[in-house]
Amino acid sequence: MKIREVVITPIAFADPPLLNSAGVHEPWALRSIIEVVTEDGVSGLGESYGDQGHLDLLNAVAPRLAGLDVFATNALRARVCDVLGGTSNPDKHGLTGQITAEGTVDRVFSPFEVACLDVQGKILGRPVSDLLGGAVRSEVPYSAYLFYKWAGHPGAPDDEWGEAVTPDGIVAQARKMIGEYGFGSIKLKGGVFPPEQEIEAIRALREAFPDHPLRIDPNAAWSTETSVRVAGELAGVLEYFEDPTPSIPGMAEVAAKVDIPLATNMCVVAFEHLAESVALDAVQVILSDHHYWGGLNRSRELAAICRTFGIGLSMHSNSHLGISLAAMTHLAAATPNLGYACDTHYPWNAADDVVVPGVLSFVDGAVPVPTTPGLGVELDRDKLARLHENYLNCGIRQRDDTGYMQRFEPSYERKRPRW
Amino acid sequence: MKIREVVITPIAFADPPLLNSAGVHEPWALRSIIEVVTEDGVSGLGESYGDQGHLDLLNAVAPRLAGLDVFATNALRARVCDVLGGTSNPDKHGLTGQITAEGTVDRVFSPFEVACLDVQGKILGRPVSDLLGGAVRSEVPYSAYLFYKWAGHPGAPDDEWGEAVTPDGIVAQARKMIGEYGFGSIKLKGGVFPPEQEIEAIRALREAFPDHPLRIDPNAAWSTETSVRVAGELAGVLEYFEDPTPSIPGMAEVAAKVDIPLATNMCVVAFEHLAESVALDAVQVILSDHHYWGGLNRSRELAAICRTFGIGLSMHSNSHLGISLAAMTHLAAATPNLGYACDTHYPWNAADDVVVPGVLSFVDGAVPVPTTPGLGVELDRDKLARLHENYLNCGIRQRDDTGYMQRFEPSYERKRPRW
Repeated sequence: MKIREVVITPIAFADPPLLNSAGVHEPWALRSIIEVVTEDGVSGLGESYGDQGHLDLLNAVAPRLAGLDVFATNALRARVCDVLGGTSNPDKHGLTGQITAEGTVDRVFSPFEVACLDVQGKILGRPVSDLLGGAVRSEVPYSAYLFYKWAGHPGAPDDEWGEAVTPDGIVAQARKMIGEYGFGSIKLKGGVFPPEQEIEAIRALREAFPDHPLRIDPNAAWSTETSVRVAGELAGVLEYFEDPTPSIPGMAEVAAKVDIPLATNMCVVAFEHLAESVALDAVQVILSDHHYWGGLNRSRELAAICRTFGIGLSMHSNSHLGISLAAMTHLAAATPNLGYACDTHYPWNAADDVVVPGVLSFVDGAVPVPTTPGLGVELDRDKLARLHENYLNCGIRQRDDTGYMQRFEPSYERKRPRW
Repeated sequence: MKIREVVITPIAFADPPLLNSAGVHEPWALRSIIEVVTEDGVSGLGESYGDQGHLDLLNAVAPRLAGLDVFATNALRARVCDVLGGTSNPDKHGLTGQITAEGTVDRVFSPFEVACLDVQGKILGRPVSDLLGGAVRSEVPYSAYLFYKWAGHPGAPDDEWGEAVTPDGIVAQARKMIGEYGFGSIKLKGGVFPPEQEIEAIRALREAFPDHPLRIDPNAAWSTETSVRVAGELAGVLEYFEDPTPSIPGMAEVAAKVDIPLATNMCVVAFEHLAESVALDAVQVILSDHHYWGGLNRSRELAAICRTFGIGLSMHSNSHLGISLAAMTHLAAATPNLGYACDTHYPWNAADDVVVPGVLSFVDGAVPVPTTPGLGVELDRDKLARLHENYLNCGIRQRDDTGYMQRFEPSYERKRPRW
C-alpha cells in the first residue's frame, strides 16, 4: 500500500484576540492540512503548523514520500531526517519552546505519520486507537482552556466570548465555556497581567468551581523567585503549575522549593531534553503533544518514559481543528498513564473546523473516541477551499503575537521573565 | 476480532550440557507454546518460559482473555495485571535477574501480546514488523553464542558440538558455529572457569577471529574488583562487557572505573530498574528481551528509553525455538537503534524446533525478516505433540542448573560473585 502523493494545503481560520505572555493572537491562525494518498486512492489526514518556515519543510519532504509504504513509518521518519539533513527549525515560535534538530524532524514527521495511521486504519477497518494498543477509555476528558482576551479584534465587532481582563471576566468565561462543553478541569493561560491579579483570578475560579482541578500557565513569564512566591500562594489550589519560568535549570530551581507539581510544554519539548530534565527532577508533569513529539507512536514512547521515570503525563494544545482533535483523542484514549484532562483550544476555533461535523463532540467535557476506521473524520472540501482562500488573503505567513500587540500598544515589549 | 480461546502447551526440547555461572543446562529445556485463537478461527503464536511457576501464571490468565479483541493489547495487559494482582514471580531463575511485580506482569503478558500481533498480521496480510513501524533492515544479524560445555550429558553419547573447556575448545566451537551460520559477532558465556582462563579464551578468539566483535558474559560471577581487573586486561578487545558483577550499584562502581561499555540483562530487567540505572550510569548497553520486557511494543518503548538516555541496545536470548526467533527478528528489524548483533541460543536447539522448517534461516549470520503475514511461522503439530510428550516424560518442572551440576559434582556451590 504505497503512497502515491502527499498534498499540503495551508489554511487560515478565525482566531479571537487571546492574550498571552508573548502578546495577542492575530485574527487568523495558520495551519496546514496534510493528505497522504495511496496508489489505491485511499486518503489519510494530518494537521500541522502553518507558519512559512514549517510549510517549507513539509513541502520539501512531501514529494520525497511517494513510493513509501504507509506501514513503513520507521522508513518515513528516516526519509524526513534525510531530507532535512539535521536542520534546525526556522519555525521556532515562542510558546512551544526550544527546538532541537531532532525536534524539527519530529515536527515535520508528525502529520505524515498521523495521515499514514489514518490510512492504515481505513485499510484495516480499525480506528487509529486500535493501532496504538486499543482505547483504554471510551471518552477523553479535556479541560476548559481560559484566556485573558479583548472583547474583539481592534476595529472588529466583539466576538461571542467578550472581554476577559479581570478575575470576574475569567470566571464569566469559565461559566460560559463549561456551560457549553461541560469541562471538568480548568486551565488559565496566564503571564498577561501582574501575578497578583492572576492569583486572584485563580482564587475566583476556585470559589466559583470548588471541585474543578485548576492549572495556570504563564508561559515562563515569571522569574524563579516570582514562581516560588506564586506557588506558595496557590499551594493546595493548583493541580499543577505549568511553565512558570524559563529553562530546565530554572524549573528545577523552582521545583526544589515548591510543593506543587511543575508541568511543561516549553522546556521539555523533544526527546533530547529528557535526560537533563530527569537528572534535575525539573518537571513532574510533561504535556505531550503529538505535533512536536513526532506523531502518535513517538508520543506513546514519551508516555512510556514518563511512566518509567515517575513523571506525570498531560496533553498540550495549540490552536487546532478537528483532524488534530481526532488524533489527540485516539492517542489519549490509548495511553493508559495519561493522568490529566487534556488541553484543547477547540472551543475557540470550532466554528471554523475543516472536518465534516458530527463525529467529534464534547459530552460532559470529554470527546467520545471515534470508533469508525482511521481517525474517523472526513475533510469538508468546501471548508478546506474557503480556509485556504483565507490563507491566501490574510497576509499572515508567520505567527507573530508580539508584533500584533505592538500595533495597538507600540511600547509593548516581549520579555521573559517579565515579572 | 475477539479471542475465543487461548491454548498453552508446555514442551521440553533437547538441550546440550552448556555451562554457566549457576551450573549446567539439563538435558531438557522447558518452554511453553501459546496459541491465541479468535472467534473466526484465526490463530496466533507465542513462545514463553516453561517453568512451573510461570506456567501457573499463564494458565491463570489464559481463560480470562476470551472475549478480548486481539487489537486491544492495552486492555489485555490490564487484564493480566488484574489476574496476577501484583504478585511477584515464583519463576525467578538465576540468569535473568531480579523480578519486580511489574516485571512479572510483563513476562506473563508477553507471549499473549506476541500471539495477538501474529493474529493482527494475519488478518491484515502484513508481517509483524509492519505493525511495529516497518522493518528498517531486511535481515537481522545475530551473534555466535559460545558456551563452555561438556562433550555430552553424563551417561549419554557426546553431542555433535563436543567438549569445550579450554581456550582451544572455545575457538573450535566458534569455528564450527561460524562455519555453519556465518555469524559476524561472538559472545562467550563465561563465569565458569577462573577469570584468567576466560580472558585467555577471549584472546584466543581475538587471534582466530581478528575482525569479529567480541563479548563476554560471566553472569555476575565476578566481584567489582575482579570485573575492573578483567576489563583492564580486555580493554580494546571487547565490544561490550556483559554483567560482570551483580546489582545496579555494583555495575555502576565498575562502570566508573573501566573504559569498556557495560551491558546487562540481569540488573536492568524491568522498567522499574531504569531510573536507578540511569541515575548511576550503571550500564551503557541494555540487552532487551521481549519475553520479559512485556512483548514487542513494550520492547520498543525500552528502545525509545535507550535512545533518549544515550544507552546502547542489544538483544538477549534464553534457550528458545522458532516462534521466539521470528518474534525477535521482527522486533529487531523494526528497531532503528538496535546497534548490535542479537544473541540467540538457536544453534543449540534448532534441531528440536516446533515450527515448520523453511521460513527461518541464517544467511551470513543474519536471519532474513519474514515477509509473510504475522510472524510468518507455522506450528508443526506433530513436533508440538512430540515436544509436549517430552515435557510429560522428562520429569523437569523448573529449570535447575545448579541442582543438575550437583548431581555430578556434589560439592558444587552456587556463588555470586564467585571470583
